[in-house]
Amino acid sequence: MTQARRERQTHPDLPYGPDGVPWSEMLRSEGLSNGHPAMISDPVANPRDVYPRDDLPPNVFELPPTGLSPEKRHAAILELEEYVTRKRDHFLGYQANQDQDHYRLDLSRFMESHVNNVGDPFTAGNFKVNSKVVERSVLDYYAALWNAKWPHDKTDPESYWGYTLSMGCTEGNLYGLWNARDYLAGKALITDPESTAQQPRLLWVQAAPPEHLSAEQKENALHPVAFFSEDSHYSLTKAMRVLSVDTFYALGTAKYPKDNPLAPGKPWPKEVPSAAGESGFSADGPGCVDVEKLAVLVEFFAAKGHPILVNLNLGSTFKGAYDDVRAVSERLFPIFKKHGLLEREVVYGKGKDAKPLTDRRRGFWLHIDGALGAAYLPFLRMAAENPNYEYVPEVPIPEFDFGLTVSDQETGRTYDMVNSIAMSGHKWIGSPWPCGVFMTKVKFQMRPPDNPAYIGSPDTTFAGSRNGFSPIVLWDYLAQHSYDKQISMIRDAQRMAHYTEQQLLRLQKTLGRDLMVARTPLALTVRFRRPNERIIAKWSLSSESLKLNPDDPKSPQLDYVHVFLMPWAKPSMIDDLVKDLHAKDAFPSEARALPTAEPAREIHEHAAALAHVPHGGRGFE
Amino acid sequence: MTQARRERQTHPDLPYGPDGVPWSEMLRSEGLSNGHPAMISDPVANPRDVYPRDDLPPNVFELPPTGLSPEKRHAAILELEEYVTRKRDHFLGYQANQDQDHYRLDLSRFMESHVNNVGDPFTAGNFKVNSKVVERSVLDYYAALWNAKWPHDKTDPESYWGYTLSMGCTEGNLYGLWNARDYLAGKALITDPESTAQQPRLLWVQAAPPEHLSAEQKENALHPVAFFSEDSHYSLTKAMRVLSVDTFYALGTAKYPKDNPLAPGKPWPKEVPSAAGESGFSADGPGCVDVEKLAVLVEFFAAKGHPILVNLNLGSTFKGAYDDVRAVSERLFPIFKKHGLLEREVVYGKGKDAKPLTDRRRGFWLHIDGALGAAYLPFLRMAAENPNYEYVPEVPIPEFDFGLTVSDQETGRTYDMVNSIAMSGHKWIGSPWPCGVFMTKVKFQMRPPDNPAYIGSPDTTFAGSRNGFSPIVLWDYLAQHSYDKQISMIRDAQRMAHYTEQQLLRLQKTLGRDLMVARTPLALTVRFRRPNERIIAKWSLSSESLKLNPDDPKSPQLDYVHVFLMPWAKPSMIDDLVKDLHAKDAFPSEARALPTAEPAREIHEHAAALAHVPHGGRGFE
Repeated sequence: MTQARRERQTHPDLPYGPDGVPWSEMLRSEGLSNGHPAMISDPVANPRDVYPRDDLPPNVFELPPTGLSPEKRHAAILELEEYVTRKRDHFLGYQANQDQDHYRLDLSRFMESHVNNVGDPFTAGNFKVNSKVVERSVLDYYAALWNAKWPHDKTDPESYWGYTLSMGCTEGNLYGLWNARDYLAGKALITDPESTAQQPRLLWVQAAPPEHLSAEQKENALHPVAFFSEDSHYSLTKAMRVLSVDTFYALGTAKYPKDNPLAPGKPWPKEVPSAAGESGFSADGPGCVDVEKLAVLVEFFAAKGHPILVNLNLGSTFKGAYDDVRAVSERLFPIFKKHGLLEREVVYGKGKDAKPLTDRRRGFWLHIDGALGAAYLPFLRMAAENPNYEYVPEVPIPEFDFGLTVSDQETGRTYDMVNSIAMSGHKWIGSPWPCGVFMTKVKFQMRPPDNPAYIGSPDTTFAGSRNGFSPIVLWDYLAQHSYDKQISMIRDAQRMAHYTEQQLLRLQKTLGRDLMVARTPLALTVRFRRPNERIIAKWSLSSESLKLNPDDPKSPQLDYVHVFLMPWAKPSMIDDLVKDLHAKDAFPSEARALPTAEPAREIHEHAAALAHVPHGGRGFE
Repeated sequence: MTQARRERQTHPDLPYGPDGVPWSEMLRSEGLSNGHPAMISDPVANPRDVYPRDDLPPNVFELPPTGLSPEKRHAAILELEEYVTRKRDHFLGYQANQDQDHYRLDLSRFMESHVNNVGDPFTAGNFKVNSKVVERSVLDYYAALWNAKWPHDKTDPESYWGYTLSMGCTEGNLYGLWNARDYLAGKALITDPESTAQQPRLLWVQAAPPEHLSAEQKENALHPVAFFSEDSHYSLTKAMRVLSVDTFYALGTAKYPKDNPLAPGKPWPKEVPSAAGESGFSADGPGCVDVEKLAVLVEFFAAKGHPILVNLNLGSTFKGAYDDVRAVSERLFPIFKKHGLLEREVVYGKGKDAKPLTDRRRGFWLHIDGALGAAYLPFLRMAAENPNYEYVPEVPIPEFDFGLTVSDQETGRTYDMVNSIAMSGHKWIGSPWPCGVFMTKVKFQMRPPDNPAYIGSPDTTFAGSRNGFSPIVLWDYLAQHSYDKQISMIRDAQRMAHYTEQQLLRLQKTLGRDLMVARTPLALTVRFRRPNERIIAKWSLSSESLKLNPDDPKSPQLDYVHVFLMPWAKPSMIDDLVKDLHAKDAFPSEARALPTAEPAREIHEHAAALAHVPHGGRGFE
């Protein structure tokens, strides 16, 4: 710290404390003014001025070195509660179910302990204050719901493995894609040959490509390439950056700049195009991946020997769309087969008899970002398949889970196509904090070898410490909601989405103006023209702006918002929103006057563009 | 799913339901037996048999498709509460404060809402049900405590930036090291030159090394190498794997197999050695990094032009040791200076006038894993520096924070040395679930350019959805605990650790046997000889086995456990533990008979060893 800063920080006359009591004085009263890092900073930078206000007075929450008196602390808590409750009562813009009053009564008792599920859910470990027994019940439930073989059995490659997440689906996607990257890149965990029974150790090693390949194939065989659609959540791009996984865009641009197979000679698209709408572009399309374009892009890289990593969405962030996992699986299967990606040999080392130690792995990985949809689609499917429900869906209910298989017509062999699924707990189910479930199969795990000499709980999950309260919340919801009840709830939500769409269409007719009302079939969300900022803030609406034709600078921009019809949403909320949308200034007549962007920078010829980084604000996981 | 599995799953006679009611029957009663994925699996694999028992009957928590009746659900919750409370009352082995009864009364009200701080803490965003105002108060508090310039101001490079974590310190370490990797590797976020004011976009780009470097320097200039000690938490190794960051071991072994500067011709150590104990080896040492050996390793790679990434620990997982951040800073500073790493130019592109667009960055990054220690060391320092406390510490209180600077004697310029700090909230403070704080400075952020055209909340944090309840818990603790109170608490904990050490030494004298009792100065933990499994399970003790000389197969192995004296621990708990340790079979006379490890595999000459993967169970973050 510079002398000047130190001086400023200990200057006695800065009026920072709540109620005008200088902190320096409070410090003195505690005998703390001498030689400790003071809570006093530059006077021009009072947080009350520089931080956003969020409708709440920041000074009420400031934390002086004295702490707060019981009265002030209590007043601040009540103020926050009032704010949270008020905002919750007009909460329509995000995929989060706020209907969760029931948790407090029965589960707040667990706030008195730190419950931590550190390590693998299926190993007891020494940290005894855990809820792993509950976690395993939740995992078994979803394994059965998603057609995986259960219970988990580490000696059975076909059985499921999974864990409950401490963050939301971001963690599940990141973990799944990390696993995919290392699996496809030929990483392995083996017993360290230098270790002893007394001190067993694991070694993380990199395999070599098989000898029989061509030079180009050898170079690419352990170099995975990632594919995901332009409607994917922004955390996907971030996951690719964190994991240093090449997307088809980055690799295509760097190595094959002229060979974009979708438009030869033109730049590569940064993400896989989504299906087109009436305009011929994806902006007004349904939001699911264009299967044919995905196949063209995958074939390009599969032909060069690369293993293929595909992320598919189930309830996309903005349009609530479902990628057609079955269609993708069937379309990509012959490509995988043609290029030897259904099964490949990976060589790690050799045993004492000099025989190569190998593993047989597939050369592709389908990860399902089921943040929203994986939680309820199975119930829609049950309703559609059981005549007792008299439910006729507008389109067939998408398949997406571990039960999805494709048969090789020549050999008659059947392949399961889905490698991993991630789901959020705070979206469909609703929970006080982000949580979720990650699931794969034992045969796809990058796990320590099954060696009983290891004690404690293997570090198989993403975090060290894991939230042990979240599985209790998920368990409690599932204990209270039978399959039958959940079937009713998802059908209710579908009806609510339909009702909202109809009301917005009526409004459009009344106003005599195109409100761009649209709903992707089976989606829980309805999108429409962006209203004014007051309405957006009141209803926590999420917005997105799409250029109709991104290649044409003069092409019009579509400014959307959406509402999500979670079980939380009541018809009266929709009616109130529609009332608000009748206001004269509800829909600004001009396009929003956006601030001018910074002057664009040109890229130096040496600088390699790696990815577009979508900006936050559109949604969350 | 195969036909056989389907058949087995719908077989009507499997006795799976709680109380012997077959699930198939329950399904039928709900009209669900037809065509849905049944909750019935292979009869030989009943979870009651294959899962660990954890002292709790798994069947009580099983989730059938019908859900549970209110009575059964309530009974299960009570059973879990009884288990958690019982285990908590004998909880001594981990760095988690269980003293948190106060949260339930005042904060359980927030369990009724989903509070989500999606996006940057300093931007309001559209997700209004958030607690960002509280989060910012917590961040300001730690910024002041850790001598960072506050409040955060995105236009002031010297001011702090941070956010509260949704996982524990694993997330903070991962985020800090990701940021470090991209910063040192010359990644940058720039405005996409193809974007327009109407549709602003960010582009993630890779810089080129400066032209004036030698070929070797050019190759290495944007290739960071990571260093951390053998006492580091296992999540560090995992973070390096996730992020694909080369450790000095992996790079040294691959490129310079004969040149290990610590022992020429011998294999490279997998981690930086910790300081040696009386034996001359680190096993019985204090647990902090060997500064001199770190310097030798760093110099080797700095001389080759690599940027340097160092993780230092503050309260290490097993020995509770503190790396000497000041000594490391002062020892490495001249090395950084000599090799041009104090400041370097990074070239991203060129402007319209063809002038190169550059950034000046340092070529080193010090990340502090302060999971445990960053929360209380500032208070120990306040006590030591203020004569009113009459506190004379056994050793000087370590410096570690953003106020730590080193002066260049030649130029007189002062450099701040610490780039980022991560801290857990569930360790010293105590919280119902893992949480924590990450902090860096604005000048080290890989953040989007400051462009007002971007709407919503920038995606600066690790997760999309972020736990908005955790900052409320941290805030509540800080509101109730003044600096003065926290000073008392950490001094109490020090006294308790001292008391525990003394009692174990007395026990050793009574038993007439070396119990290997040891405590690193200022540590909150005392380690001693591993007792029997019954005692380990009762007290949730964490264990670690260290070979005295890892290079000698005949060298003895030290089997330790430790207790952590968190504010939760009462003298009566220590007295009870010491009583238990008087049992005749408390300390097995023979070394534990470990199961024989799998026959070791040899590594193929093509397979590259990348890292040792420490196994879980020793601790948590």
